[in-house]
Amino acid sequence: MTICLDMMGGDFAPLEAVKGLQRYFAEESTPAMLFLTGDEAQLNPLLAEYQIPADKVKVIHAPQVIGYHEHPTKALKEKQQSSIAIGFHLLATGKVDAFISAGNTGAMLVGSLFSIKAMEGVLRPTISTVIPKENGETGLLLDVGLNADCKPEHLNQFSILGSLYAKHILGYDNPRVALLNIGEEEGKGNLLAQATYPLLKENQEINFVGNVEGRDILLNKSDVMVCDGFTGNVILKMAESLFNITQQKNIHHEYFDKFDFEIYGGTPVLGVAKPVIIGHGISHAKAFCQMIRIAEKMISTGLMEKMKASFEGK
Amino acid sequence: MTICLDMMGGDFAPLEAVKGLQRYFAEESTPAMLFLTGDEAQLNPLLAEYQIPADKVKVIHAPQVIGYHEHPTKALKEKQQSSIAIGFHLLATGKVDAFISAGNTGAMLVGSLFSIKAMEGVLRPTISTVIPKENGETGLLLDVGLNADCKPEHLNQFSILGSLYAKHILGYDNPRVALLNIGEEEGKGNLLAQATYPLLKENQEINFVGNVEGRDILLNKSDVMVCDGFTGNVILKMAESLFNITQQKNIHHEYFDKFDFEIYGGTPVLGVAKPVIIGHGISHAKAFCQMIRIAEKMISTGLMEKMKASFEGK
Repeated sequence: MTICLDMMGGDFAPLEAVKGLQRYFAEESTPAMLFLTGDEAQLNPLLAEYQIPADKVKVIHAPQVIGYHEHPTKALKEKQQSSIAIGFHLLATGKVDAFISAGNTGAMLVGSLFSIKAMEGVLRPTISTVIPKENGETGLLLDVGLNADCKPEHLNQFSILGSLYAKHILGYDNPRVALLNIGEEEGKGNLLAQATYPLLKENQEINFVGNVEGRDILLNKSDVMVCDGFTGNVILKMAESLFNITQQKNIHHEYFDKFDFEIYGGTPVLGVAKPVIIGHGISHAKAFCQMIRIAEKMISTGLMEKMKASFEGK
Repeated sequence: MTICLDMMGGDFAPLEAVKGLQRYFAEESTPAMLFLTGDEAQLNPLLAEYQIPADKVKVIHAPQVIGYHEHPTKALKEKQQSSIAIGFHLLATGKVDAFISAGNTGAMLVGSLFSIKAMEGVLRPTISTVIPKENGETGLLLDVGLNADCKPEHLNQFSILGSLYAKHILGYDNPRVALLNIGEEEGKGNLLAQATYPLLKENQEINFVGNVEGRDILLNKSDVMVCDGFTGNVILKMAESLFNITQQKNIHHEYFDKFDFEIYGGTPVLGVAKPVIIGHGISHAKAFCQMIRIAEKMISTGLMEKMKASFEGK
């Protein structure tokens, strides 16, 4: 399998991306061949310095970089020689099996939606986050910001995409899917939640366990939680802030270590036709390595084919 | 001033309500006369046992109680002799200046909206929560569940109600009001947030400081945060769950002590014509005492009159 990694994305690029590769190749099983997009004048010395095995990587020179504050659509169009644009080109043309970047999130989303495109039948691709549960396990929450305004049928589709991801990537046999809501019983909630509940209840492809509330997000009540991207994004960022706050206050406990979202790598864009993983801007070596592992798993488990099969003819 | 306290509301009623009174009267300044609604056969021995000063309280016998699972509208209509119905009657007829209950939340909201009613000009009364900030101060978040679906003009009104509450009750001179959103810049967010931003920006009665994100909720970026009741409720319940989780895990730190929402007492229903405070079902003595203090402050600062003046002619 071949995975393309954007070496220029992230606040600490390209150094941390190189360190991520070092970390990856230091592990036992490294089935992936890595295509690295970025400025070869910067990359080659670093790859040598960190002793990245030359037969396992291939540098694809990209003379341009899309900055953090650039307008995604405009930048992707005008910077065709950027590390992100080239990465999407490699993925779209089948030269690689997955693409990873911690660069401009907007550009990554635009590239996913317009150059890779949604799977047939998928109304809205989505992004998710792993949520640390109180019992040490991890659940999945989606959407976390790609779709600020949602319709019930979008949430219903997220539940299928999230369920398949939880099963094949997170390892849950029969993941319990819940609707994030502001009450326990059916009929509670805002208009969106009220209209979504019956769709999830009737959905034969998921193991729907009903509503969960804010108080249940960090507990082991479900494995996959669906909500609109506004609510999900607020939850994700609030959870992320807990890690910083506890660090600053010198509150050290293994529970809060799990709120270091870097350990989970990036978020895949679920519902697009090929594996795309978006990393956080502050990604360090650990996150880059973990994103390569997620991409690997998405490829080796045939997750895309399983998702496509679920939406075929819908 | 006279404040009515429902003695039968809450999981530990009437005992914890009596202990709350004891706590209140043990303090130095106790300007309020308390009207206590409930079953006098249960109350009188307890009031004697806990040495509640007889000249500072007056028991109003209420032979009925509205249970937690009763339908709010139906119960209020059918149980006119319940401690909640009598409390609202006393408040509506001007016999008391404020009403407090930790009983059936739905019945408290229905009573507030239909027997006390919204102030003139207020489209939607709202409920808020105090949010512990990382620096030890407390901010205000609203709406937290009364209005699951909101329009921009609702959020704009919440910002005024919250701002006045933060100023007169929480003691912020010129409270910084923020819009909870999923991006920093104007133009970001879901349709609601996008349409609300310009209203807040133009609102001369508040000190609008722009958007805050999920990561800012627990920081000192603003003093009042407005959002729809779905998002706010999820945030509140998630924050509440942190206290339980840290307690269970024996993570003890003064920062997490602030997530014991009982210390903040209950939530006032903002935008209704008279002071109504709703307590949490699990309220103990501390919460009851604190709710009396909040009611006192709402009366003594003339908060209702200030709010009415803000909405007059709108």
